[in-house]
Amino acid sequence: MKILILNAGSSSIKYQLMDLEDVHHFTLPAFGLVEKIGESMGRITHKTCVNGLNSTIVEESPIPTHTEGMARVVALLTDADKGVIREASEIQGVGHRVLSCGEVYTDPVLIDDQVKAAIREFFPLGPLHNPPNLMGIEVAQRFFPNAPQVAVFDTAFHQTMPPKAFLYAVPYAWYTDYRLRRYGFHGTSHKFITAATAEYLGKPVEQTSLISIHLGNGCSITAVRNGKSVDTSMGVTPLEGLVMGTRSGDLDPAAIEYIMEQTGMNIHDTTNALNKQSGLKGICEVNDMRDVVEAAAGGDQMAEIALQMFTYRIQKYIGAYMAVLPKLDAIVFTAGIGQNSFPVRARICDGLEHLGIRLDIQKNMASADNTREIQQDGAPIQLLVIPTNEELQIALETKQIIDG
Amino acid sequence: MKILILNAGSSSIKYQLMDLEDVHHFTLPAFGLVEKIGESMGRITHKTCVNGLNSTIVEESPIPTHTEGMARVVALLTDADKGVIREASEIQGVGHRVLSCGEVYTDPVLIDDQVKAAIREFFPLGPLHNPPNLMGIEVAQRFFPNAPQVAVFDTAFHQTMPPKAFLYAVPYAWYTDYRLRRYGFHGTSHKFITAATAEYLGKPVEQTSLISIHLGNGCSITAVRNGKSVDTSMGVTPLEGLVMGTRSGDLDPAAIEYIMEQTGMNIHDTTNALNKQSGLKGICEVNDMRDVVEAAAGGDQMAEIALQMFTYRIQKYIGAYMAVLPKLDAIVFTAGIGQNSFPVRARICDGLEHLGIRLDIQKNMASADNTREIQQDGAPIQLLVIPTNEELQIALETKQIIDG
Repeated sequence: MKILILNAGSSSIKYQLMDLEDVHHFTLPAFGLVEKIGESMGRITHKTCVNGLNSTIVEESPIPTHTEGMARVVALLTDADKGVIREASEIQGVGHRVLSCGEVYTDPVLIDDQVKAAIREFFPLGPLHNPPNLMGIEVAQRFFPNAPQVAVFDTAFHQTMPPKAFLYAVPYAWYTDYRLRRYGFHGTSHKFITAATAEYLGKPVEQTSLISIHLGNGCSITAVRNGKSVDTSMGVTPLEGLVMGTRSGDLDPAAIEYIMEQTGMNIHDTTNALNKQSGLKGICEVNDMRDVVEAAAGGDQMAEIALQMFTYRIQKYIGAYMAVLPKLDAIVFTAGIGQNSFPVRARICDGLEHLGIRLDIQKNMASADNTREIQQDGAPIQLLVIPTNEELQIALETKQIIDG
Repeated sequence: MKILILNAGSSSIKYQLMDLEDVHHFTLPAFGLVEKIGESMGRITHKTCVNGLNSTIVEESPIPTHTEGMARVVALLTDADKGVIREASEIQGVGHRVLSCGEVYTDPVLIDDQVKAAIREFFPLGPLHNPPNLMGIEVAQRFFPNAPQVAVFDTAFHQTMPPKAFLYAVPYAWYTDYRLRRYGFHGTSHKFITAATAEYLGKPVEQTSLISIHLGNGCSITAVRNGKSVDTSMGVTPLEGLVMGTRSGDLDPAAIEYIMEQTGMNIHDTTNALNKQSGLKGICEVNDMRDVVEAAAGGDQMAEIALQMFTYRIQKYIGAYMAVLPKLDAIVFTAGIGQNSFPVRARICDGLEHLGIRLDIQKNMASADNTREIQQDGAPIQLLVIPTNEELQIALETKQIIDG
């Protein structure tokens, strides 16, 4: 089944065209990124892989709207010469990454007017994502009018959290009236990792408990008990929890007023600074973990401190979630940093031996793209590195909906 | 040595007159509370214990200023008939509870003009406490001009935290320019508990590691490694961390902007609501833990949820600090709720058996005022209940300074 996976941002569209049967049988004929929509010069990077031949096309030209961006993508996909399909109608389904519909949808859903209305209703809770997500849906409906469109929500996997984990200790009316609660994000990734961990361990998902550590541009950690998310570090927004590239993660809520008083910034700029000028970048001025690791290795003290803060916060969450999970099958590292940065993994595990976390230095340093174990032989807790694939998870869920 | 311990608030003065030699040899001839200073009607509750005879005097009359409140206290202490000393000059030292001087003073200090200037400098970081604390010092200097005055800072014990624990992942200039960092509070209590735990276990403090859980009106938890605070749940203010009577504790920092947008409140009122309308009170409308426990036992669902949230948050912090501490001698419960609420202690321990936390139901329910163990025989982690005594700790530190 040919499925187009779309992730529409405010000035971008990420897309993948997958041809899939199941999690192990799929190909990725084309994928790419439309960026700088609405700016004076836009760009499309389109990659194809046909019969083992890779090619990349980069187009630079103004792309005034998402509609025009999508028109270019369809043209590239169906190009008589370099296309991977003959016509748009070959696409049998479109899977959309949508940030959140709060508690309204806890599973992927076939998009109709009601779903679109719900996505719109949650604009205030996802002001940066839900509006472009909806735009992406409407554009796709125009170009693929006969393909079922499916919304896969990034918060859905966490809807199994119990109230003690998702409620904040604030006036309860803020939850009932304004929907303020922990939603969690990266749900599609944590769900994929949960299934992959269960399969790797040869256990039913419903009997698999793990701590899933997603360390990419954004970072989050999830406690999964018997296949279900029971707690996660991100909150009502993706700002809470771990230290990230440019996001602060956890902070004394009273610090906001203090920062505003001291700096003279308003609340919007303060929140913005916590999202975009904080995290690794706030401490050591670079937000790419590779640069931070390199700088720390070169003796840069602030990079060293940033790295310590980043990994220490994760250690504390591992401990917290080990308290939450009476049984733990594995701790899993995923996403850009989690999959690729052996020094970060080493620092996270360092000092946690008393919890049964015993990293094998050699296995940890071996680079590989597949699922692998990195704990010492005989260690009580399995440490795994598993590549995440959110697009594949969205494609699988889209196919499931289409298949009924 | 007769020492007066003072804790001056914006409209109150708490005081204790202690006569002490050391931590085990002291008496408390008088203590009391001046309240509603500056209101139309003030009140002093003065208790004395002389030769085993307890008496209480309650005076109601307007108390326009802290100076007049202190004058009344001195009059009561030196009353020809019911007084416990003959004249104010018998008081050999005054110990003041002071919220914070940030990183300036990490130990108790003899108060001089420089110390007072430092306390003033930290008004912005402790706007509710430092100003009245300073007023209390100035009033006491007037009434006890010959007694050494000592400041004991509530944040001092936590000054041993490493940067990875005390820094927030925000722009580093906010730390260097505005002193934004985790300070932690209840330091005097956690220090007292640390010493008491070491003594109970018969170990040197420098070799004692514990998790100190202070559950009173405010709640905080501290990881103590080899006698030193290495992490604590309260932050730049006492709002961060655990769920408290009326305080939210941890919250997504981006929630503040969302709450302001939804409610129309300004930042000051929002922070105020997080301090005064949140916590247990926010969830189930009562903030006294005894009422919450009773309501939950009676089937009140919101009280049950509040109780679950309160104890679940503590469980996560216990896990986090067990990750931080490679060696753990004891987990210690203290302060009003920690010392007295066996149902809360039971809920905190419930489900943490896999961490080596094994509560003995009977020992936990036995009521006692002294230090006691409540873990099962042979359990790997000692669970202790230890009554805290911040005033005694302040008196001890004041005496130490005076003794040189």
